[in-house]
Amino acid sequence: MGTEIITIGTELLLGQIVDTNASWIAQRLAEAGIDLFYKTTVGDNAGRIEAALRQALERADVIITTGGLGPTEDDLTRDVVAAVLERPLRLDPAVLAHIERRFAHRKIPMPENNRKQAMVPEPAEMKPMLTEQVIPRIRETFGIQSRIVSRVLKTCGISESKLDHAIGDYFREMQNPTIGVLAHAGEIHVRLTCKGEDPATITRMLDDLEAKIRERLGPLIFGRDEEKLEALIGQLLRERKATLAVAESCTGGLLASRLTDISGSSDYLERGVVTYSNTAKEQILGVPAELLRESGAVSLPVVRAMAEGVRRMSGTTFGLATTGIAGPTGATPEKPVGLVCIALAWDGGDLAREYRFHGGRELIKYRAAQMALEMLRRHLLAVPISET
Amino acid sequence: MGTEIITIGTELLLGQIVDTNASWIAQRLAEAGIDLFYKTTVGDNAGRIEAALRQALERADVIITTGGLGPTEDDLTRDVVAAVLERPLRLDPAVLAHIERRFAHRKIPMPENNRKQAMVPEPAEMKPMLTEQVIPRIRETFGIQSRIVSRVLKTCGISESKLDHAIGDYFREMQNPTIGVLAHAGEIHVRLTCKGEDPATITRMLDDLEAKIRERLGPLIFGRDEEKLEALIGQLLRERKATLAVAESCTGGLLASRLTDISGSSDYLERGVVTYSNTAKEQILGVPAELLRESGAVSLPVVRAMAEGVRRMSGTTFGLATTGIAGPTGATPEKPVGLVCIALAWDGGDLAREYRFHGGRELIKYRAAQMALEMLRRHLLAVPISET
Repeated sequence: MGTEIITIGTELLLGQIVDTNASWIAQRLAEAGIDLFYKTTVGDNAGRIEAALRQALERADVIITTGGLGPTEDDLTRDVVAAVLERPLRLDPAVLAHIERRFAHRKIPMPENNRKQAMVPEPAEMKPMLTEQVIPRIRETFGIQSRIVSRVLKTCGISESKLDHAIGDYFREMQNPTIGVLAHAGEIHVRLTCKGEDPATITRMLDDLEAKIRERLGPLIFGRDEEKLEALIGQLLRERKATLAVAESCTGGLLASRLTDISGSSDYLERGVVTYSNTAKEQILGVPAELLRESGAVSLPVVRAMAEGVRRMSGTTFGLATTGIAGPTGATPEKPVGLVCIALAWDGGDLAREYRFHGGRELIKYRAAQMALEMLRRHLLAVPISET
Repeated sequence: MGTEIITIGTELLLGQIVDTNASWIAQRLAEAGIDLFYKTTVGDNAGRIEAALRQALERADVIITTGGLGPTEDDLTRDVVAAVLERPLRLDPAVLAHIERRFAHRKIPMPENNRKQAMVPEPAEMKPMLTEQVIPRIRETFGIQSRIVSRVLKTCGISESKLDHAIGDYFREMQNPTIGVLAHAGEIHVRLTCKGEDPATITRMLDDLEAKIRERLGPLIFGRDEEKLEALIGQLLRERKATLAVAESCTGGLLASRLTDISGSSDYLERGVVTYSNTAKEQILGVPAELLRESGAVSLPVVRAMAEGVRRMSGTTFGLATTGIAGPTGATPEKPVGLVCIALAWDGGDLAREYRFHGGRELIKYRAAQMALEMLRRHLLAVPISET
């Protein structure tokens, strides 16, 4: 059996919005083992909506439409669908009462054209409608048993070629689950995709392959699926009752901002300082003026002094610091755009590394913050830190 | 005349990637006055690519395809297009030589299947191909004279209903240019869209309407099109030879990070501190312990002390500070999630306001940083600051 999605809306054909609904629906269908063969987009034009529907009726067993269901003049979907299927619309009193209640609740008079919405379920309900109603009905009607489940293992600070060297044989040999590798900003993801019928069997097959990959990559995998590096670091610090202070030059507050995106981060993040100027590095962090003069602000000695300085002033377990050239200005022949020094300091020790990141200013900031978090994570887990 | 876009790729039908190429092409077509009536997506399947092409040949004057042009087995577009049009493919020696040079340059042997790419222009070139070749040819072939030009005026810290009150009459009456209002996180955008033939006339019509809107909204409009609030503030500070230091609690570094996204921000941003803990607020910023005890960390007296503290310690013209409850934890009956206090301090004066923001943790952080930037902008331009 085959499915077709028809998305309706002139704004889609003008490129004013990106059709994220269609790809969301496509994902859910794929997971549910429902084949999608075509996706068609038309504007708010009755003739062309009709043409698209008639075309889809010829080549698909199931048609899912989205868009054109609101209360305004140009919302034509319900009328055209009714005409094509030769099933006249009727006003559903229960739906109308529900819409009237919603307006009453918001204390605004209901415009007459909102009556139109009583003829269909509400468009804002697209996602639950699809997952709770549409997909189960399609699976039942067509006796679909199979489903597709994906799992993502995330790594940071390892190159694609090293990853290929480590798990390339699985990558090439595995038929089910299959393995795909995707590069994101500052992360490389390994995606396992399993097709099967029984959810428990699928989970077991994914678990088996994940275990094999983890055997090779070990703690180089920092997380799974939606897990974020900043959240995992929070967990690790919390488990160890450790605290953190950050000193940022080139990342300019991004490192602190990512750490504070995590609710409860005040338990372990004591403070952050953005020491953009040399004066601030001296005054707040106690970086010696002669060190700045001799080695330059972007250097391993300075980043070490920053990490140790912020740790000492805040009395935390760890101090984490960045300094670098985010560009596009500020580079010299010896210190190009993308050069970033990162250091981690603790009571009685420290480590510092130099990196070269590519991309524009925001991407360099992001990659530097990511690598600083990864440096802390690896130290907490006693994993060696390379210089890539 | 009508155009149809066909995007080809199984990953689009699996929802693994969002079709941003198609909406980018749609935008460029709309700007060039070229009507787009259908957008179809098919997977890497010869039969369905052919069906989509034949269908499009029936209903469209121009077909633009994207995807399926790479060197691998499942890239079928060129073969199917050749078969449908009954025009056999030929190997272009110049293109082949170019591809061979690229591999030689990267010092990797060229795999045999990359010869396939010699038969078409390179896929990575989609954007320049479209704007430099495809669109001019379509306009010439079909004698299209009209074009659509949009302009966006950006506001911050004004509600949609106030905006409607101020310019609603234009919004309802104007036929060309038309006006649309779009709410973004922390910003409301007024989009002017003009259709016409002569670029100079279009620009004049947009200028006229923009002038009328600016007459009503004045400096409530902070910028146009791609202009960012953080960049405009940089300009304003630079013009005044003023400097800035920021002290952040609830925004957690985001305010500094947005300011440092702008190249050259080290000229005016002297430093930032993320004082998450009360200890840090006392130690670094000199906020009195009794003030924290009596008023609480999220209060107007404390945020004033933070702004003045960071200004004094760094010797800058301005100090800007935030403190609030970003949630989801940390709220009390008196201080709900979303309560944020923002203050600006300068030599001999300050101002502080309390806001209630909605949304999740990251959105509250973003809105608070946005409003802090807007407070500084309004102060620099002597525009009154409200409490919304």
